[in-house]
Amino acid sequence: MKNEEILNQLKDENIDSMFVYKPENIKYISDFYPSSFAYLIIDEEPVLYVNSIDKEDAEEQSTIETRDIVRLGEVKDLLKGNIAVEESLDFGLLKFLTDDLNSLTPSTVFEDKRQTKTKEEITKIRNSIGIAENGIKEIDFTSTEKYAAASLEFDMTINGSTKPAFDTIVASGTRSSSPHSLTSMNRVETPIVVDWGARYDHYCSDITRTFIDSERQEEIWNIVLEAQKAAINTIAPGVKFADVDKAARDVITEYGYGDYFIHSTGHGFGLDIHENPNLSYNSNGVLEENMIVTAEPGIYIPGELGVRIEDDVLVKKNSEVLTSLDKKLDFSL
Amino acid sequence: MKNEEILNQLKDENIDSMFVYKPENIKYISDFYPSSFAYLIIDEEPVLYVNSIDKEDAEEQSTIETRDIVRLGEVKDLLKGNIAVEESLDFGLLKFLTDDLNSLTPSTVFEDKRQTKTKEEITKIRNSIGIAENGIKEIDFTSTEKYAAASLEFDMTINGSTKPAFDTIVASGTRSSSPHSLTSMNRVETPIVVDWGARYDHYCSDITRTFIDSERQEEIWNIVLEAQKAAINTIAPGVKFADVDKAARDVITEYGYGDYFIHSTGHGFGLDIHENPNLSYNSNGVLEENMIVTAEPGIYIPGELGVRIEDDVLVKKNSEVLTSLDKKLDFSL
Repeated sequence: MKNEEILNQLKDENIDSMFVYKPENIKYISDFYPSSFAYLIIDEEPVLYVNSIDKEDAEEQSTIETRDIVRLGEVKDLLKGNIAVEESLDFGLLKFLTDDLNSLTPSTVFEDKRQTKTKEEITKIRNSIGIAENGIKEIDFTSTEKYAAASLEFDMTINGSTKPAFDTIVASGTRSSSPHSLTSMNRVETPIVVDWGARYDHYCSDITRTFIDSERQEEIWNIVLEAQKAAINTIAPGVKFADVDKAARDVITEYGYGDYFIHSTGHGFGLDIHENPNLSYNSNGVLEENMIVTAEPGIYIPGELGVRIEDDVLVKKNSEVLTSLDKKLDFSL
Repeated sequence: MKNEEILNQLKDENIDSMFVYKPENIKYISDFYPSSFAYLIIDEEPVLYVNSIDKEDAEEQSTIETRDIVRLGEVKDLLKGNIAVEESLDFGLLKFLTDDLNSLTPSTVFEDKRQTKTKEEITKIRNSIGIAENGIKEIDFTSTEKYAAASLEFDMTINGSTKPAFDTIVASGTRSSSPHSLTSMNRVETPIVVDWGARYDHYCSDITRTFIDSERQEEIWNIVLEAQKAAINTIAPGVKFADVDKAARDVITEYGYGDYFIHSTGHGFGLDIHENPNLSYNSNGVLEENMIVTAEPGIYIPGELGVRIEDDVLVKKNSEVLTSLDKKLDFSL
């Protein structure tokens, strides 16, 4: 199914063959995630080329034909006609494929197809979310931000997460006002923004909760929650990406905090933590069934505080919020 | 100092300007690690171009001139003459720099210079090793391999590691016989190969210990230790990379296990976990003062067991083993 869709889009784009090396794309089409350098060549069918160290595992796990890797100098001979490559393909490899960049077509076929998830992918993401949700129940705020992040990651790891989906953010006190804040060795204060995710069979989850304990924090938190609900309520097949963003942004703007909502409302995720679509005011396109996106508005007031609430939503006629955690969680410092 | 050396090598290579985007290379020359897309342009001097989200931090932390990022369509105008790029530069960015790959020169100037460490880098690596060495004392083998890895990573994180230097390996029982073994949800058995490292200010450490409890395991362990000592004893400025490998390999071959030592003896590390040099039988080049390399021979007998011992060595007239952990560590299951 997946493979057919990839092959069909390549045909539509007039591509005769494609060279693919991004491990996430190899995993997507073959269900095998290489531990070492590997590549796919797609023409009539996709064929996976792997190193000897991966051979046994690939033959066992790959759903597509597997062959021994061919020396890079000879890869050119395996490609023919109008050749596509990924945007991420590097100079070191490109030199083996061509001298002339114009002879290659950048193709986003994998990024396009990976936007909508298969049943198996949805199950893996559900598992990843489950691990992440259990983890937050074990978070320990009695010491530093780093300690809190470590306690959460520990719990996710022992429950089957291969590693965090991204560097866990625990940003507390005034540090919460930067969405890029690094988890510090400072003692945890309030509000506490925790943005975290697990990886289950390479599939990510992505959740944020903000822990609050004052009236002012609650005031901002309520606005963010209202904005998030507005965004989630719009999520359905056929809705413009920009309209999901607008729904959240309008609420925050109405309360006078529009300038403090400094990122987009959400994004797709799966094998990568950031995938298409981007739910931003200037994104083009519409939601499709079986996309999985985050809904994560936030308000960041420099020097004072930040609040973000993030859940994961499966796009369907009646869209399903995959995260089941309460929005407001009890905690103690 | 660093900057001068980079500029000198570029001059020697007849490069007029270089486009650099790998975060590790940006960190190396500016001491600033960007949180978002950023690039360097080097001609007379290196200049760092950063996004607005990184502006404040870059201005505070960067040791080189910082400017606002220029749209990619205009970057070409900032480059002149013979232009160098990193091998890792991707197709998506290359298209903005040229149509013709032959007009660009791949330069390994950063990889070359980063092989020898500055005083500040050595200090950071010492700190990273210290965090890793403390962590192993807290490892808990009473449950699964994953649990053991999580307990070790927890301790490193709360002691200041930003994240593991690489996915921690806890490979026990017969699983220890694969050097690429993934940490499993199986209960820990012996022997236990633990290969781990911390990150301190982006600098890695890389250590392996094998925990043993039978005569057969000890027999193999003693051979690996003898091989490692032989390798470490050769490490000095001017010694060929291949000769370090040979020293370890000769010992293991002499005992009849040559076919079971299936990787090279060591590698450089620093901002990346794998840097040049590669201490392999077919590497060309000689050790230089202030390189930091691993010495990590191993024996892997399929279906039976694996043993690896890895320490980190600073190359000097009297080379210094930076790791101070005992080779044999007590443990309980």
